[in-house]
Amino acid sequence: MQANWSELDMISLFSGRIGAADTPGLMEGIGDDCAIFTSSDGHNWLVTTDMLVEGVHFDRSWHLPDLLGRKSIAVNLSDIAAMGGTPLYVLASVALPQQIEKDWMEQWSMGAASIMEEFGCTLIGGDTVKGAVLTINIVVLGSAPHEGTILRRTASVGENVYVSGNLGFAAAGLEICRQPALFDSLTRDELEIFTAKHLNPIPRVKLGQTLAASGMVSAMQDISDGVATDLAHICTQSGVGAEVLADLLPGTDSLDKVCRSLNSTAVDLQLSGGEDYELLFTVKKGKDEDLLTFLQDRGGEKVHRVGRTVPGEKVRLISPEGSVDIGFKGYQHEGSNS
Amino acid sequence: MQANWSELDMISLFSGRIGAADTPGLMEGIGDDCAIFTSSDGHNWLVTTDMLVEGVHFDRSWHLPDLLGRKSIAVNLSDIAAMGGTPLYVLASVALPQQIEKDWMEQWSMGAASIMEEFGCTLIGGDTVKGAVLTINIVVLGSAPHEGTILRRTASVGENVYVSGNLGFAAAGLEICRQPALFDSLTRDELEIFTAKHLNPIPRVKLGQTLAASGMVSAMQDISDGVATDLAHICTQSGVGAEVLADLLPGTDSLDKVCRSLNSTAVDLQLSGGEDYELLFTVKKGKDEDLLTFLQDRGGEKVHRVGRTVPGEKVRLISPEGSVDIGFKGYQHEGSNS
Repeated sequence: MQANWSELDMISLFSGRIGAADTPGLMEGIGDDCAIFTSSDGHNWLVTTDMLVEGVHFDRSWHLPDLLGRKSIAVNLSDIAAMGGTPLYVLASVALPQQIEKDWMEQWSMGAASIMEEFGCTLIGGDTVKGAVLTINIVVLGSAPHEGTILRRTASVGENVYVSGNLGFAAAGLEICRQPALFDSLTRDELEIFTAKHLNPIPRVKLGQTLAASGMVSAMQDISDGVATDLAHICTQSGVGAEVLADLLPGTDSLDKVCRSLNSTAVDLQLSGGEDYELLFTVKKGKDEDLLTFLQDRGGEKVHRVGRTVPGEKVRLISPEGSVDIGFKGYQHEGSNS
Repeated sequence: MQANWSELDMISLFSGRIGAADTPGLMEGIGDDCAIFTSSDGHNWLVTTDMLVEGVHFDRSWHLPDLLGRKSIAVNLSDIAAMGGTPLYVLASVALPQQIEKDWMEQWSMGAASIMEEFGCTLIGGDTVKGAVLTINIVVLGSAPHEGTILRRTASVGENVYVSGNLGFAAAGLEICRQPALFDSLTRDELEIFTAKHLNPIPRVKLGQTLAASGMVSAMQDISDGVATDLAHICTQSGVGAEVLADLLPGTDSLDKVCRSLNSTAVDLQLSGGEDYELLFTVKKGKDEDLLTFLQDRGGEKVHRVGRTVPGEKVRLISPEGSVDIGFKGYQHEGSNS
């Protein structure tokens, strides 16, 4: 039996053997965006890791090394953002094939260093080894918010579901990078908006911190596998179901143009495109207006209501055409965070 | 210019851009066995990482998966041991080719889980992704000793240099695994002693803790690249030189037999064989006897004096044939810890 299995299998392999619940100082083990552990004074730490493999997670033929350096760090910062934390320290390990030019690696590390500086992080360790396939493993350690970390498993029935930013843009950008000839109906500016989202995602660290500080968010995670799958994580872990309303999904005319070129629909890309690195969260009942005011007062980052939690365990899409089950059916890109 | 470069190049790429010295809470960045960071109450944390790539760091044709699982964790525990710390949490990331059988991966994780349990560690995260080459990245977080962490850069001139356990056995074991036919003069028990040291090294966590508790050790690191290279790290970072006395290197008749089969000498294997995962340390002046008594009273783990620190910056081997420079000339296996 071959092992083209998901991370869930790996976790189950281990969790049968390792009792994490009673580990001193461990507040959250595997299963959320980050693990949480605590010092004796109650200072909480977050830790997350992502492994990126050439040919699976990135393509050097179109991904410039400095942007890939930034993205290697960004996807981990997004996990810290999803708990409302502050990133602090980075470990960067790289398996490096001989054919990678030194200039490429210098550009990669310049990109990684630039985003670390922008987000106040310091490189504190890593490993550089020889390997036939370029493989990048990043770990980010962060400080948990004083107001309390926002977990996945704490949503309740009857709450509204929100997302930050746009959905499906990164997936659109990936398709544009893969087959640019398909998209000659788009302007240069339109192309740039989508490809930037794929090549150089900006983690929502500040928004995550603001949402944690509000005290009005009940559950949160980042959107790496697409809203359909990621909302299913929140629902499964919280013991609720959810409805996503197609009419509420944030879209643009440009996204519609991309989708026409792909013979796809915007809603497909928005629900299951993956790699948006936006935040997906539920708001405590009756707090919606207060939260929107709170955000407005602190810089006005846009968030969009896209649905609500309901009794049950299913994630369903409600559209004028009817209702379909979308939980864990979204595009699952190769590998997922823990 | 191609990039078959060492970790030192990678670190220099970053360190020109990232000022670590003034990072709040960061006590040690890159350059020792572990990085050290602190919580607001002064609780110190250690973190280390190692990446292992199939065909570079291990060979599945002779390395049984459960033992490789153990070793994947052990090499990181050894870095925690080298600071005198206590390992607590593990993150395990794996890039998994489709041809790896599920049974192999189950055995690997059983091995990893068994050593984690023996050393009181809990798996708290990781990532499982698809990849053409089996690549394993492990991170271990630990608690720093109350008595103070033992660094590499704090040796002084005129101190004796010690090692734990035997030297060169892991390198001998690797050669036996590579070309078993060469070693038919060895008994089954002899073969087992060497191959176990390569396949299933035992990190010196308890000894490291005892040495830290003694207050009599001035500098320490683990032996991953061979005493020659690893002592050069301590010397460079402490601003001292060192002399290793060939006559003091711990050896056995069996090791001599292996070396005859390899047309090598025991001293070569002992100095530059690599992957011993023993501890290498300097003892504060005048404290040698007190330390040996301290160790005797606490279980009696064997340590061997192998040399002394001297003025200057060179690491030299002193033997009946004369004196040779050995610093940074030892076998450097592919990739090194940070």
